[in-house]
Amino acid sequence: MNTPVTSPLHYALCFASMAALAIFAVPIASAQGTPGREVPARTLPVPTTVSPQMQKIIAAPINPNWKVWPKTPEEWKASVAKAAAAVEQRLPALREALKVSIEPMTIDGVKAFMLTPTVIPPQNRNRLLIHVHGGCYVNGPGESGTSEATMMAGFGGFKVLSVDYRMPPDHPFPAALDDAMTVWKAAQKMAPAKNMAILGSSAGGGLTLSMVLKAKMDKLPLPGAIAPGTPMSDLTGAGDSFQTNAMVDNVLIAYGVSCDVRAAMYANGRDLKDPLLSPVYGDMAGFPPTILNTGTRDLLLSNTVRVHRNLRRAGVIADLHVHEGQAHGGWYRDHTAPESKETFEEIARFFDRHLGK
Amino acid sequence: MNTPVTSPLHYALCFASMAALAIFAVPIASAQGTPGREVPARTLPVPTTVSPQMQKIIAAPINPNWKVWPKTPEEWKASVAKAAAAVEQRLPALREALKVSIEPMTIDGVKAFMLTPTVIPPQNRNRLLIHVHGGCYVNGPGESGTSEATMMAGFGGFKVLSVDYRMPPDHPFPAALDDAMTVWKAAQKMAPAKNMAILGSSAGGGLTLSMVLKAKMDKLPLPGAIAPGTPMSDLTGAGDSFQTNAMVDNVLIAYGVSCDVRAAMYANGRDLKDPLLSPVYGDMAGFPPTILNTGTRDLLLSNTVRVHRNLRRAGVIADLHVHEGQAHGGWYRDHTAPESKETFEEIARFFDRHLGK
Repeated sequence: MNTPVTSPLHYALCFASMAALAIFAVPIASAQGTPGREVPARTLPVPTTVSPQMQKIIAAPINPNWKVWPKTPEEWKASVAKAAAAVEQRLPALREALKVSIEPMTIDGVKAFMLTPTVIPPQNRNRLLIHVHGGCYVNGPGESGTSEATMMAGFGGFKVLSVDYRMPPDHPFPAALDDAMTVWKAAQKMAPAKNMAILGSSAGGGLTLSMVLKAKMDKLPLPGAIAPGTPMSDLTGAGDSFQTNAMVDNVLIAYGVSCDVRAAMYANGRDLKDPLLSPVYGDMAGFPPTILNTGTRDLLLSNTVRVHRNLRRAGVIADLHVHEGQAHGGWYRDHTAPESKETFEEIARFFDRHLGK
Repeated sequence: MNTPVTSPLHYALCFASMAALAIFAVPIASAQGTPGREVPARTLPVPTTVSPQMQKIIAAPINPNWKVWPKTPEEWKASVAKAAAAVEQRLPALREALKVSIEPMTIDGVKAFMLTPTVIPPQNRNRLLIHVHGGCYVNGPGESGTSEATMMAGFGGFKVLSVDYRMPPDHPFPAALDDAMTVWKAAQKMAPAKNMAILGSSAGGGLTLSMVLKAKMDKLPLPGAIAPGTPMSDLTGAGDSFQTNAMVDNVLIAYGVSCDVRAAMYANGRDLKDPLLSPVYGDMAGFPPTILNTGTRDLLLSNTVRVHRNLRRAGVIADLHVHEGQAHGGWYRDHTAPESKETFEEIARFFDRHLGK
């Protein structure tokens, strides 16, 4: 495996990208030479059409520090570690509630965690899910990247192998994809490919799609199904909901903020239209059956539905689920929300329909 | 059939509703007692991620007279007739382009049009689609209600029977539903129920769902599949995209404007939560396989995905398609847009998969 070391040039490029991405000043191309639609300032009430738990998630205020970014690799690492520690504190209770155990392991040099539910129904005993976590390609190291995998294991009754891939600032593209593919190759000895699915949300949704593109390129076996959730499928800023849901999504907030700054560190100066970075531009012919999740307030609503349409145009079985009122990844924030259970059970049913046994 | 005559009380109620619905001043309940999310004024560029034809549809400015409503039944009728005449002018060219013929008929006292494509593929020869047009329960009388049915016939290769149901101001609820059910009952002599689908968008999407609820109530045969497009499934104002897509959708504009004013005339003082008016509140157990369409800018995005989730919770086969950048019903505005052909072909494939032959 290659281990790129971050150069001063890398950082110069990164911060140049960040400067260019100042939101609302982004010179997003408008088609037809029209000035676009004026939308007045508004106050959006918290919807009454979702559960109380989901109302709380939707009502959460935007992080007041959303315009403050770390300035050096050391500051990035400290910021990532702080966020990870906060998540990790909640994981033991999550595993206990969902009756899931965790086992750290190393697979051909790549760190990973196996999440195993206490009860695995008979039809899932020869099945294995590979999980790639979210976090904008920068956050979610170690155990802190396993909460979605834990919910999938617990609500779905599957063994889930969650990849703890390397990330910037030390390891930009293609380290994450390389690590995920190393695990995918090694997993061929654990279960037949058609009995396995790949899943992940946000950056993990982008990686899920990139893994299938890479497996096609390298003529590796493809999984029996995939579940990219609210995938970062287009890092270039294209996708209408980057505009329509700006400041509406309380997680990603707007294009050019936070998540895209992190993704620029991952891309490390590479063309953002490269399908392995922005898989919406990839050839999706021959993809396995795919289930996609997003929300009506999701900044990546468009880039989820664009993937769905591309899959359908390529003749792929592809199910889309759009969740009322939810911003980016609302269904894996609180396992007690009925919408969370519902979403993971929907994914589990889809996998059950399409995976080998 | 009952033929309710519009009373002065009906109009008093209508205009009281309209006054209560002044947009942005609507006291929409906010959950959790929170003040909601402040979203600053913005200019939304026309997305570059859709076809040039769709860009033109999305770029169309909001009708400058969107706050001007007719004040008397006569003014309503004149307004409806004017809009209908404009649509009808374009229909001969549409039928010619899609090679579809039209035949007016009367079925058990209800006016209808049969749309027949020149070429009907063998698998569709014993199939029939029933179409209920949109127009907020007030617009789209006579031939002017047949453009969606024409596209379905032409792109899908189906015979489509489009119901020219009675409408306000002369005929409020339940006239439209009564007429549609009269045709549904009569259609049982034309084809087996499992070989038939019901489709329609906007008010027609609401009616499609209400027809299935009514058929369940009356223990009539159910169709083999349905295709409610961007359904008016909730007239009460609930549904988060009534807020998030207000002024973003250039067709429906906002809740309480235009379409809901018309729907209030249809409801005629009846409880808006009645499932036959707001089918999202109906019991969807036992519904036939359903394909739903909406767009990311659709004011009814939420009320389409809420129906999808209710169907899935009831264990119904339900496919959701959300179209990039499109406002309300973008896929049936211009038959030359590739997104139009794609959407009707997607519906046709769904019907082919689920209808008897």
